[in-house]
Amino acid sequence: MELIKSLEWRYASKKMNGQKVPQQKIDNILTAIQLTPSSMGLQPYTVLVINDPDLKKRIQPVAYNQSQIVDSSHLLVFAAWADITPGQVEEYIQHTAEARKTPVEGLNDFKNSLLGIILKNDTEQNYQWAARQTYIAFGTAIAAAAEERVDATPMEGFDAAALDKLLGLNEKGLRSVTLLPLGYRDTENDWLANLPKVRRQKEKLFIVQ
Amino acid sequence: MELIKSLEWRYASKKMNGQKVPQQKIDNILTAIQLTPSSMGLQPYTVLVINDPDLKKRIQPVAYNQSQIVDSSHLLVFAAWADITPGQVEEYIQHTAEARKTPVEGLNDFKNSLLGIILKNDTEQNYQWAARQTYIAFGTAIAAAAEERVDATPMEGFDAAALDKLLGLNEKGLRSVTLLPLGYRDTENDWLANLPKVRRQKEKLFIVQ
Repeated sequence: MELIKSLEWRYASKKMNGQKVPQQKIDNILTAIQLTPSSMGLQPYTVLVINDPDLKKRIQPVAYNQSQIVDSSHLLVFAAWADITPGQVEEYIQHTAEARKTPVEGLNDFKNSLLGIILKNDTEQNYQWAARQTYIAFGTAIAAAAEERVDATPMEGFDAAALDKLLGLNEKGLRSVTLLPLGYRDTENDWLANLPKVRRQKEKLFIVQ
Repeated sequence: MELIKSLEWRYASKKMNGQKVPQQKIDNILTAIQLTPSSMGLQPYTVLVINDPDLKKRIQPVAYNQSQIVDSSHLLVFAAWADITPGQVEEYIQHTAEARKTPVEGLNDFKNSLLGIILKNDTEQNYQWAARQTYIAFGTAIAAAAEERVDATPMEGFDAAALDKLLGLNEKGLRSVTLLPLGYRDTENDWLANLPKVRRQKEKLFIVQ
């Protein structure tokens, strides 16, 4: 399977070389993110695609000065919706009706079940649900980058509140969840580049019954 | 990109036909899960691979009687570690040292940073962190199934506490997070099989800057 080869090729590059990733490859990674499934199909997140070197430089200190932030070609910021509102559900239902060329009234049961979930949950619960969905897209992005032989370093280690402030995410109803610098490994200066991949043994990771 | 074609092909099958998925395809999907990255490389989850028709029948009622549970070939249960313990960190560090043929003492700084995180967090926080990692593997499994042209229906809709009890997951230090029936679509009887995919428009899903 192509995906297995890609996942074997990839690793979390600790040192990137600053080389730009061609726009077509970035577009393909974004298309894969767009196609990622999510609970109820809501896709309750936004992905920032940061290309601007100055902005990356300002982000670096809130991400423990990790060098890949500035040595990447593009930095993806996966930001979950800070809440899920009836207005967002309404927009999704409208969009579904248009995409499927179906009367919006036919989606009333679906809409009501979605509204039932988000109104039963408080803001923090809705955010946590949205954040979990974000990780599915995060996983797809990592796989898609690997298929394009683009390096990507999944990062949870950053000051999310500080990054939200820097990027004005609160005003957009978003909260940053993960980072994914995209670029190319600097093989000579990356201590991790040539180390064997470590993964739990199948007999521990899986229970077959 | 092969992955984009696969993601376009897939959808969340609402009705499966009971046909078995060849073992080689199941093995490939499990290998892709195994290769999935996770925070600090810990892979804090276990995936149950359920083949037994009787067990699937007993699971169906706690998953709102969704038909794919019994009409699937295999049912994957993604279960996160209910806590992350120093013992689990120790095992991971030992395994890393063996896989990289390096003295375990050389990993002391890494071990201490991992212990710092899990001891600062309480049980629920460690579980939530583990659950988020589970979603990365869940996303990879969905993509891998699609690459094998195996249908998969991502599910969050089930009674997790009841499933944990049924499968004895508490005793194993696990909590169920998501389900993924693997099988083949029953195109004629699946209302979703021929509807267009709905995804947020790129100009809404992404902010480029």
